[in-house]
Amino acid sequence: MPLHIRPMTQRPSARTQTSFLFDLDGTLVDSVYDHVIAWHRALQDKGIDVSIWRIHRRIGMSGDLFTAALSREIGRDISDGLRSELSDLHAHHYNTRTTGTVVLPGARELLKHLTENEIPWGIATSGRMRTAGPVLEALGVDPAKHVVITRDLVRYAKPDPDLFIACAEKLGTNITHACVVGDAVWDMLASRRAAALGIGLLSGGYSTGELERAGAYRVYEDPADLLRHIDEVGGRR
Amino acid sequence: MPLHIRPMTQRPSARTQTSFLFDLDGTLVDSVYDHVIAWHRALQDKGIDVSIWRIHRRIGMSGDLFTAALSREIGRDISDGLRSELSDLHAHHYNTRTTGTVVLPGARELLKHLTENEIPWGIATSGRMRTAGPVLEALGVDPAKHVVITRDLVRYAKPDPDLFIACAEKLGTNITHACVVGDAVWDMLASRRAAALGIGLLSGGYSTGELERAGAYRVYEDPADLLRHIDEVGGRR
Repeated sequence: MPLHIRPMTQRPSARTQTSFLFDLDGTLVDSVYDHVIAWHRALQDKGIDVSIWRIHRRIGMSGDLFTAALSREIGRDISDGLRSELSDLHAHHYNTRTTGTVVLPGARELLKHLTENEIPWGIATSGRMRTAGPVLEALGVDPAKHVVITRDLVRYAKPDPDLFIACAEKLGTNITHACVVGDAVWDMLASRRAAALGIGLLSGGYSTGELERAGAYRVYEDPADLLRHIDEVGGRR
Repeated sequence: MPLHIRPMTQRPSARTQTSFLFDLDGTLVDSVYDHVIAWHRALQDKGIDVSIWRIHRRIGMSGDLFTAALSREIGRDISDGLRSELSDLHAHHYNTRTTGTVVLPGARELLKHLTENEIPWGIATSGRMRTAGPVLEALGVDPAKHVVITRDLVRYAKPDPDLFIACAEKLGTNITHACVVGDAVWDMLASRRAAALGIGLLSGGYSTGELERAGAYRVYEDPADLLRHIDEVGGRR
């Protein structure tokens, strides 16, 4: 897929306040591997064999693109009915996992730091509210009080830039001054298409090299590591 | 840790028959993510918080080194008693997983190809027989008939080279003519210390870049992809 990178218009010559647009799974909560296993089980339920690492490398992209990629892997079409069944089975397995939702180290502290310093931030996830809702609750983020954009609210999810663009618009900030923080190659591709700067986190299981090749301008281990280096990426007033 | 790479003695000027020394988990069977989740649950059982991606990146190394690395992550000592408890809990969670053991695409065909072409091959795993046994059975490998070296048989596991050296010795082949096939950085480091050539597979969830930086001379997707390119790496008579 060619990258349609927009020209860097409105990029100022002097420092402008950065905003932070966060992915959710693998970026603020330790949920990527649970999603991987839930998808694998959903596919097994329908008798579809796909290696787990291939599922891992697709997490975070739009569900429709996920099934399109899957269809290429298994060499057969996936009907709308089957796609919908797989989506339901995934939600079922994810929501009935026994391990609970674990917030990544430093995630709450990072959001608190931004709030206290009056730096705008929001969350933009390819997931739907039915799976993201309980995760946001564990993170202490109330969608009524904070800007949260889910898959339900836009037409195209990642690696299309719509989620992050909608997030910046709702924050009232210019996306070309924003940092997009994500753990997946799809976040970095979406951030480039939105002309934002991508910050990669290793906490979803991608490597530094993969994130940098997808356009990350900085890579940190997890939210705690990003918070320790927040002054490197405009995270202070 | 410095790499003690041995001099490439006995490297012949003419072609010598290659042998193939395989890692097991993530290389022949799709079990890395199950091990990751089992370790995470074992740690949760003991109230120890470690992010899942950090566990993923340690899978395949010696259990003792794993707990040593873990001890650094959590900033406290892990007693022999706790280590043994964690090992038991991991084996329990792994052996009671609901998803069964899935052989990676092409794994059985790859071993069959080597056998039919009278190319020596063996398996060398950092796991113990109590977890590896059922996995070998799913793969159709009988330890009474094929060369299988487990953690029970050597003093030091990966990234020390002992498992692969013992495997080559039992096969009666010279390890400096061998290919070590593995999915983890630890397999590649061990292969370099044994002066063998490392072949990386993506099927355990590491990236091409990580495997190449650890010394892989070729990287393929999975056993099926290696089999399709087997003539590139000496896999024909």
